[in-house]
Amino acid sequence: MSTALLAPYLADVEGALHSALNEFTEPAWLYDPVQYLFEGGGKRIRPILTLLACESVGGDRSVALPAAVAVELLHNFTLVHDDIMDSSDKRRGRDTVHVRWNQNAAILAGDVMMGMAMRLLMRSAHHAPRPLDVIDAFSTGLIEVCDGQALDLAFMERDDVTPEEYFTMIEKKTARLLEMSVAIGANVGGATNGRVQALRDFARLIGIAFQMQDDILDITGSEAFGKSPGGDIVEGKRTWLMLECARRVREDLNAQEVHTTLVASFFANNGLAREHVNAVISMMDTYGVTADATALVEKFTNDAFAHLHLVPQNPARDLLEVLAKMLMARSV
Amino acid sequence: MSTALLAPYLADVEGALHSALNEFTEPAWLYDPVQYLFEGGGKRIRPILTLLACESVGGDRSVALPAAVAVELLHNFTLVHDDIMDSSDKRRGRDTVHVRWNQNAAILAGDVMMGMAMRLLMRSAHHAPRPLDVIDAFSTGLIEVCDGQALDLAFMERDDVTPEEYFTMIEKKTARLLEMSVAIGANVGGATNGRVQALRDFARLIGIAFQMQDDILDITGSEAFGKSPGGDIVEGKRTWLMLECARRVREDLNAQEVHTTLVASFFANNGLAREHVNAVISMMDTYGVTADATALVEKFTNDAFAHLHLVPQNPARDLLEVLAKMLMARSV
Repeated sequence: MSTALLAPYLADVEGALHSALNEFTEPAWLYDPVQYLFEGGGKRIRPILTLLACESVGGDRSVALPAAVAVELLHNFTLVHDDIMDSSDKRRGRDTVHVRWNQNAAILAGDVMMGMAMRLLMRSAHHAPRPLDVIDAFSTGLIEVCDGQALDLAFMERDDVTPEEYFTMIEKKTARLLEMSVAIGANVGGATNGRVQALRDFARLIGIAFQMQDDILDITGSEAFGKSPGGDIVEGKRTWLMLECARRVREDLNAQEVHTTLVASFFANNGLAREHVNAVISMMDTYGVTADATALVEKFTNDAFAHLHLVPQNPARDLLEVLAKMLMARSV
Repeated sequence: MSTALLAPYLADVEGALHSALNEFTEPAWLYDPVQYLFEGGGKRIRPILTLLACESVGGDRSVALPAAVAVELLHNFTLVHDDIMDSSDKRRGRDTVHVRWNQNAAILAGDVMMGMAMRLLMRSAHHAPRPLDVIDAFSTGLIEVCDGQALDLAFMERDDVTPEEYFTMIEKKTARLLEMSVAIGANVGGATNGRVQALRDFARLIGIAFQMQDDILDITGSEAFGKSPGGDIVEGKRTWLMLECARRVREDLNAQEVHTTLVASFFANNGLAREHVNAVISMMDTYGVTADATALVEKFTNDAFAHLHLVPQNPARDLLEVLAKMLMARSV
């Protein structure tokens, strides 16, 4: 399993992205930040999903290429606006757009990228049997990724978020764009509704599994993953781990005071000081949530592949499986 | 000429807007600000243009109604983001979204409105003879309105903006959305390319005339128009009046020192203290720019109607003319 198999797809995406960006250069005040954002790199997972989904249903991936670039534009639109909302200073090791330029440039760069994405999307859509299905997948993706970001932000103001609400949030914020990426590729490739749905289910479940695994790695992982362990606990992020742990502690009539205090303090202060991280991780182990989360990740991943296998075997379908496994192994 | 003739169109727009907003309620954190924005009212000029353009080419306006709402959503998306960028506290007499809630809510409300707009647009587009032309007009409108806003912001950092650049800016920032509104209506109504173009030219020229007249009213008008006279001069806005006046002063070898100083100070300080407003207005009269601007407004308006009259006379075309005249008379 290697990235070599995916290299031609990545090369296609980078080439088409480069051409697309060259269509938009003036006013430089607006497009320099857009250019900068893409020069920062990125794994281009979503556009590669679009191309593979198209091929996996028998389509010609060159036809899906503009749509693939549209998907990457939409993804980066969410990043540039989320970075403002989260006051993030760095992205892919470089200053974020609102730091390098200013907030107005970052708002407007995100906005225009959506227009650029729509224009590119149409170039693929008009080859699709049902062009408006392509646009529909895109607009639904855009709406739901906003819904997901709003839920994420709203969760920070609440101490009663349930683990079920967490799934709704990551499904919208993280999984929906992966789902949209394959839905667009499959529609452009002329897939039947059944195969579009199978690919959607595959991508959505991989997205949920990936995000949950990300949350687990935050407490078990090392600096190798680019984060300090326990960062989510410090920042007060409402992860499934924390929410499920809080529920179990609250329902436990014999809960230790140290545990009830940690939980209450986490929500009241939107995070805990770094010195409490180990106590929280140990509490999560005591209540079995880390093990349960790991089991859920495995279940979601297996379910994802079961849905993928509803599409008859072919080289592109195999590559979708390769890509998903690389994602879950954090090797892409 | 009265608003009574346009009342049925306004009622259609308000009804469809209300229904559309009711489709999107959760998460409230996201959609309450959207709802609030529309409760603030608005003249709904753009969606009425869409309906009238559709009817003027023989289309059924009910088919264009979702697209008309999409156009109003796009317009309000620009307002909510522009209000952040311009640090405006009030809009239509009420707190702006970023003041009433916070900046993150305002960014995200704008973003999701674009997704809502796309979804509504498709409901009309699939009735159009060339559905993708409808989407194309929309995405181009979105891109160019961002280009226009970027130019407007970039102008504030420059002292060498030309009067020609001003036209490019208002064409994109103000006129393009009016042009898009009629283009979408005409396309949904099944217009020939020639008639789409005639309506586009009409709306673009009215948009330019309207914006120039707005700039003139800022220096000649009264508080009745909701602005303190000379507000643009105080804020350092690069209007055609100021740019053309600056050009004439700079080219005048015998210019009075008071004039050269006013011009230099305007650009160097991005605006002048209110006590200098009368001197600037008097300078504009001396150099004949106010009269020339008024003549240009008349020329653009007449040109606009000449283009409109390329569409054969019918009641909806007459109403487009009524609406344009009301706009120019500030009576709508």
